[in-house]
Amino acid sequence: MGKEFLNLTDPDKVKDVIKNFAIIRKIEEINFAETYGRILAEDVHATIDLPPFNRASMDGYAVKAKDTFIATEDNPVLLNLSEVVKAGNIPKKRLMEGNCVEIGTGAPLPSGADAVVMVEFTETEEGNIKIYDAVAPGENIANRGSDIEKGNILLRSGTLITPDKIGVLSAIGMSLVTVFRKPRVAVISTGNELIKPNEDLKYGKAYDINSETIASAVKSCGCIPIHSGIAKDDYNDLKAKISQFSDADIIITSGGTSAGAGDVLNVVVEDIGEVLIHGISVKPGKPTLIGILTKGNIDKIIFGLPGNPVAALVVFQVFAAPFLRRMAGIRGYKQRKESIKLRLSRRYHSSRGRSQYVLIKIREDQAYPILKDSGAITALAEADGYFEVPKNVEIIEKGDKIDVIPLSRL
Amino acid sequence: MGKEFLNLTDPDKVKDVIKNFAIIRKIEEINFAETYGRILAEDVHATIDLPPFNRASMDGYAVKAKDTFIATEDNPVLLNLSEVVKAGNIPKKRLMEGNCVEIGTGAPLPSGADAVVMVEFTETEEGNIKIYDAVAPGENIANRGSDIEKGNILLRSGTLITPDKIGVLSAIGMSLVTVFRKPRVAVISTGNELIKPNEDLKYGKAYDINSETIASAVKSCGCIPIHSGIAKDDYNDLKAKISQFSDADIIITSGGTSAGAGDVLNVVVEDIGEVLIHGISVKPGKPTLIGILTKGNIDKIIFGLPGNPVAALVVFQVFAAPFLRRMAGIRGYKQRKESIKLRLSRRYHSSRGRSQYVLIKIREDQAYPILKDSGAITALAEADGYFEVPKNVEIIEKGDKIDVIPLSRL
Repeated sequence: MGKEFLNLTDPDKVKDVIKNFAIIRKIEEINFAETYGRILAEDVHATIDLPPFNRASMDGYAVKAKDTFIATEDNPVLLNLSEVVKAGNIPKKRLMEGNCVEIGTGAPLPSGADAVVMVEFTETEEGNIKIYDAVAPGENIANRGSDIEKGNILLRSGTLITPDKIGVLSAIGMSLVTVFRKPRVAVISTGNELIKPNEDLKYGKAYDINSETIASAVKSCGCIPIHSGIAKDDYNDLKAKISQFSDADIIITSGGTSAGAGDVLNVVVEDIGEVLIHGISVKPGKPTLIGILTKGNIDKIIFGLPGNPVAALVVFQVFAAPFLRRMAGIRGYKQRKESIKLRLSRRYHSSRGRSQYVLIKIREDQAYPILKDSGAITALAEADGYFEVPKNVEIIEKGDKIDVIPLSRL
Repeated sequence: MGKEFLNLTDPDKVKDVIKNFAIIRKIEEINFAETYGRILAEDVHATIDLPPFNRASMDGYAVKAKDTFIATEDNPVLLNLSEVVKAGNIPKKRLMEGNCVEIGTGAPLPSGADAVVMVEFTETEEGNIKIYDAVAPGENIANRGSDIEKGNILLRSGTLITPDKIGVLSAIGMSLVTVFRKPRVAVISTGNELIKPNEDLKYGKAYDINSETIASAVKSCGCIPIHSGIAKDDYNDLKAKISQFSDADIIITSGGTSAGAGDVLNVVVEDIGEVLIHGISVKPGKPTLIGILTKGNIDKIIFGLPGNPVAALVVFQVFAAPFLRRMAGIRGYKQRKESIKLRLSRRYHSSRGRSQYVLIKIREDQAYPILKDSGAITALAEADGYFEVPKNVEIIEKGDKIDVIPLSRL
């Protein structure tokens, strides 16, 4: 009989192999305004006290708290307005007993003042201010360093920089930030029949689907895709394409991994490195190769995805994406693509013995399995996500709750 | 007594007002490789049949199915190998009875052939091929147009373009794609005390936090932030800053909305448009203004966020983000930020009468409320997400399940 995959590896075993890959991360310094979506590569310490001075945390009147102790709504206290300090301005005088200072949120508290009465509990009367509520010392003010003391740690290395974290960097006026460099991922499609989108579709040819599909999936993992053009199903051409990316951190190919005549990737990887996995007991995605390239300055991981576009994308999401995210420095619960619990629209029979990944479309909180050949482009067109059927499960009943991993999220 | 917000609006009412805003979307044509994360602004029809010709869907041997009907594992059929057609090549001869053609996945089926025997069920013997398994007509082949017929609709206008959809565009060789133009959002911080990150922090001043926080939150909604610099708490300066963005689709300011001395935004918006909402019964975020600018070619929505950074970000996420996503053309379940169910780490008391948004940090599937003043930068530094306490709920018990909206996701 013909060639077969002699050693299909269990998907859990494959994940273990990938988890053990060593990772070397590079860093770079960028402007803080460009850090959205990046990963901190250093601990960020406060370079200033926050607030940097005692300040009002409400609009109102800075007072000596003891001057307000007897104030009530029925019996207001009358204080003399000695100064106006708007945010951004500086108080010029010391606050004396019986006086108050009109003050804006964020403005420095005049010396002598120890509280702020909110504007809502005051009234102006001929240059004097009626205070309708007592305040305790410290009320409505934020003391220097009360939020953060200079030198304290604010953000830890490894933090994903989201808008709130950009707020933190802004607060200390940090303009340059050290982040992990985005891993560079070479993306190579293999196949004599493949042509680029601007070329003429001659008889026998097909448009290259995987290059841009996988490149954009690489982007979704916080990495930068590098394009290769298309390799022929040919030892020398594929080897040359793989070797030309000396600056890539990872190589991802698709095609050229099946057990048939076109199985050139296996030979190339055996020659310039080591094949670790060749064949995974999943559906779709059986003809997947994972190896390590050892010829060169630094060992490089290579993922050889199937040529079939649905299989390539599913294998990428299940096996390559977690590694790419880890390489990019994304950690903890942000590593996972959050799943959505949905009810299955119909009974689903799975194949025995192989873990299966089933594309689904979502309609009104139900998941509809897309029952198409895994080469079907219409399956990709309709898909909103996928779910996993473990290898020991053969039937999932209609209405059962399943965990759907969305393919898409902004 | 001093100024107050006379008419705090209920958050559900505010959401209704926002839902009724009319939206005008602009479009642009871009290269398909740049469409990741964009929204289709046209239906995409298949410009070709897929597959474009009858092709092998497995590596193996193209045969006349009837030649294999008696083949079994014990009694193989012997066929003469008449030709080899690799993917990308074209068959030269018509397949005759008793013959077979070695064929690669994706290669055109020779005329006369009606099935492919997978390579796994064959063996080569002196130029002939032993076939160990019978195949039915049509087996392991994909007929022209069987996946998609030319002219059929593939993707609908409004689709978020994710890697799988880029696969669909690739499959038909579509190089230019019409997408919604990203809405342009002017982001303006207001405050006399505010300085930019590269400036010296003089006494009385504070670094502008909201500009870049909100700008990156705008990016997370599929929009483009336009920067304004910082407006003074001054009618003329703020009006000039707002008016200069004739090409912005929406304006978002922060600060200058509270009931105190600095409430200039309200006056500006009343002069060049209409204030729809001034004050929302939420915590944090009460001093929020929503209005419509009617002076200019096109009416423009303006969101006036509070100056306090935590309040500004929460109000942005709760009220502005859904509008921005809708304006960007993001629809359906992708509109929502998916929430995560977590257990509350401690009993939480909410304030009466106002919906409350509570920042939390996540540790091992528990949500820890961050009990800090909403001006605290350390709250932003620690936060992983937030949850909402509706206005009629006063206590949530320790261990209760809550829906957390993550602040961060790549």
